[in-house]
Amino acid sequence: MSKTIKGFSKLTKSAKIDWLATNFAHDPIPFKQTLARYLNSDKVVQQLHDEFIENTITNFYLPYGIAPNFIINNKSYVIPMAIEESSVVAAASMVAKYWSTRGGFTARVLSTEKTGQIHFISSRTYDELYTYFTKIKSDLIASTDDLTENMRKRGGGIKELQLVDKTNDLANYYQLHLSFNTVDSMGANFINSCLERIARQFEKEGIEIVMSILSNYLPHCIARAEVSCPIADLGKDGQNFAEKFYQAVQIAQVEPYRAVTHNKGIMNGIDAVVIATGNDFRAVEAGAHAHASNSGQYRSLTQCSITDGMFRFWIEIPLSLGTVGGLTTSHPLAKLSLELLQNPSANELMEIVAVAGLAQNFAALNALITTGIQKGHMKMHLQNILNQLGANADEKAKVNLLFKEETVSHSSVKAALQKLRTQA
Amino acid sequence: MSKTIKGFSKLTKSAKIDWLATNFAHDPIPFKQTLARYLNSDKVVQQLHDEFIENTITNFYLPYGIAPNFIINNKSYVIPMAIEESSVVAAASMVAKYWSTRGGFTARVLSTEKTGQIHFISSRTYDELYTYFTKIKSDLIASTDDLTENMRKRGGGIKELQLVDKTNDLANYYQLHLSFNTVDSMGANFINSCLERIARQFEKEGIEIVMSILSNYLPHCIARAEVSCPIADLGKDGQNFAEKFYQAVQIAQVEPYRAVTHNKGIMNGIDAVVIATGNDFRAVEAGAHAHASNSGQYRSLTQCSITDGMFRFWIEIPLSLGTVGGLTTSHPLAKLSLELLQNPSANELMEIVAVAGLAQNFAALNALITTGIQKGHMKMHLQNILNQLGANADEKAKVNLLFKEETVSHSSVKAALQKLRTQA
Repeated sequence: MSKTIKGFSKLTKSAKIDWLATNFAHDPIPFKQTLARYLNSDKVVQQLHDEFIENTITNFYLPYGIAPNFIINNKSYVIPMAIEESSVVAAASMVAKYWSTRGGFTARVLSTEKTGQIHFISSRTYDELYTYFTKIKSDLIASTDDLTENMRKRGGGIKELQLVDKTNDLANYYQLHLSFNTVDSMGANFINSCLERIARQFEKEGIEIVMSILSNYLPHCIARAEVSCPIADLGKDGQNFAEKFYQAVQIAQVEPYRAVTHNKGIMNGIDAVVIATGNDFRAVEAGAHAHASNSGQYRSLTQCSITDGMFRFWIEIPLSLGTVGGLTTSHPLAKLSLELLQNPSANELMEIVAVAGLAQNFAALNALITTGIQKGHMKMHLQNILNQLGANADEKAKVNLLFKEETVSHSSVKAALQKLRTQA
Repeated sequence: MSKTIKGFSKLTKSAKIDWLATNFAHDPIPFKQTLARYLNSDKVVQQLHDEFIENTITNFYLPYGIAPNFIINNKSYVIPMAIEESSVVAAASMVAKYWSTRGGFTARVLSTEKTGQIHFISSRTYDELYTYFTKIKSDLIASTDDLTENMRKRGGGIKELQLVDKTNDLANYYQLHLSFNTVDSMGANFINSCLERIARQFEKEGIEIVMSILSNYLPHCIARAEVSCPIADLGKDGQNFAEKFYQAVQIAQVEPYRAVTHNKGIMNGIDAVVIATGNDFRAVEAGAHAHASNSGQYRSLTQCSITDGMFRFWIEIPLSLGTVGGLTTSHPLAKLSLELLQNPSANELMEIVAVAGLAQNFAALNALITTGIQKGHMKMHLQNILNQLGANADEKAKVNLLFKEETVSHSSVKAALQKLRTQA
């Protein structure tokens, strides 16, 4: 037995699995059966998924669910969500329906600027560098012509290129700071390819390139989504609800311990759609949370107002998304998600995703300020515990009834099930 | 045709799919085939996954890959990763091997305190509230005895309960701030159940509970991972490499545009393990990025030093993870991931995950300061483009050769493949 190996990546998939089973499994047979159970029976489909990353041994399932009845800018949508956390899809569906009779969601893209930087070190002065930069600037851009040709045809490309003096932050540190429009693609590969090309052109004696890379900080690539209605339309306890909701949002503005969780709930909705459409959720997460902290204190991404009898609730969030390229085109379910969303442009997808985040936050706050978060969570949690304990349909129905008003915990459910089984 | 629906959640799965196919599919037949292709042929397995969330119609595949040869605290590991982004597993494997001959990774848990808050509004003074709080404090904790019994047996439970005056931030705003130890569980349900129980006990005339909820901000639940070696061991260009690496980390300390991307790369590694082990990546993302911003400026989560001929590179990151409860026990592949990781405690999993993040950052910086990030990315990107264009094995081999030194773009690969096919 050896827990280290040479040449693992060169082994066939089954040889990889054999080695893992021999050296890490408690019992190799069920270990291999579990891995095999999740392989696709269609070899072509499986090969496609194997090749997305390295050393693939099987597929990890995320549940793929649907939240129907979203009205966004007067258009009806169903929203596909890939997410393991229970209640997220149910919450989205509930909120979609609620707002569908109150004017729906409005959403728009405020800006779509993406950023990349070439970080370099030079002992020259800013003025010296600026003279060189100005002279070579058009050559730098021209050097990417073959890379940007298609993007330019679609209205995108490099939008700006600036020399930035960062020597106050770090000795001899300068940047070339670039803005891009990547149209319907997320654009990471495009931006990085352009940057590396420009860096090679720009480098010379006395200018040492440290690195060239896109930025996931996107303060100028923002979508906004909103719901609003007269307070009277919020139901018979509307005024009280609106005020308490407003308070909850204010708390998430002033208290970082709450703000982080508040925004985490937003990201439950956001990431579920980002993943379902084959986009990169780490990029979206990084951009969103950095945006939440850009006042110097970490704050809520959503805001709320009550003025002149109107309740308003909105989000502004940076989103870097694509509807072409990468997994959006090559993962069959990502493609199907885009079909379900009626083949949106990247901008329309930004609007939809912002709505999904706002909806999730509405659901969370609504639960928190009324019945508490656990009621909904626990309903699904109970089903998962029952499944773990191998409860049959009859037992499930009986235990569900028992826990209608009780606090669910693993031990209390286990005890209840045992009691049922003893009685039976 | 209707794009909105009543009672969607009550439909059977196939009725849900029928409705979606009729109203949203370009062509219902291939649409249904795609969804069916991703269902598990074993009905029991499929039902388990269907019940994790609501309105499930199929399974979304994330590639599940293995990064071998990690040495952490002198113990050998293979790390399972569920991630759609190419190069993440390859990068992890490369870095694991590199450091395995340089002393491996060291990691430890610095703290494990989790937090929950009961947010309330009261027009009473802090002194009045404090008198009431002191009187009732032991009753508040006792009210959770049945919920905390099992956790206390394992050494966890409620560790602290304080009254906090937040009226400087918001009029009449106070908190009960609680600390928890949740041992090997992530603890979200446990914490929220305790908080809601305590809130009910604490509420009375003049004290209005706004909400009770755990916090995903975890400044006192931190894992640290490190690599270090004499600069001479970094290779023949060690001094230069170490200095440039140090510079790259410094840049991520001072420049938020870079810091966000730098940390995003860390999260590529972190989330891949978090997902593979059935943990909640939104919680980890929120905590990590908030931590990165807690100086008032968003900064790198990793740090680097060069002193007395030693290169050191480390991360300190908040991580809320479980190895029991939730999906960690109920998702068969999450369970298998924990088996591959040799059934770690939650603390050991924190160490492993921190290492995965540090390794990913080392790989990214190593690529960025030497060959550039695109070389590795593009190798995988090229395979995905070739798959999209339906290239066969022979065509793939030929195009791979052509693009060994060329910049990969969708159009250039397409052109090369067309040329090949015309010549054939």
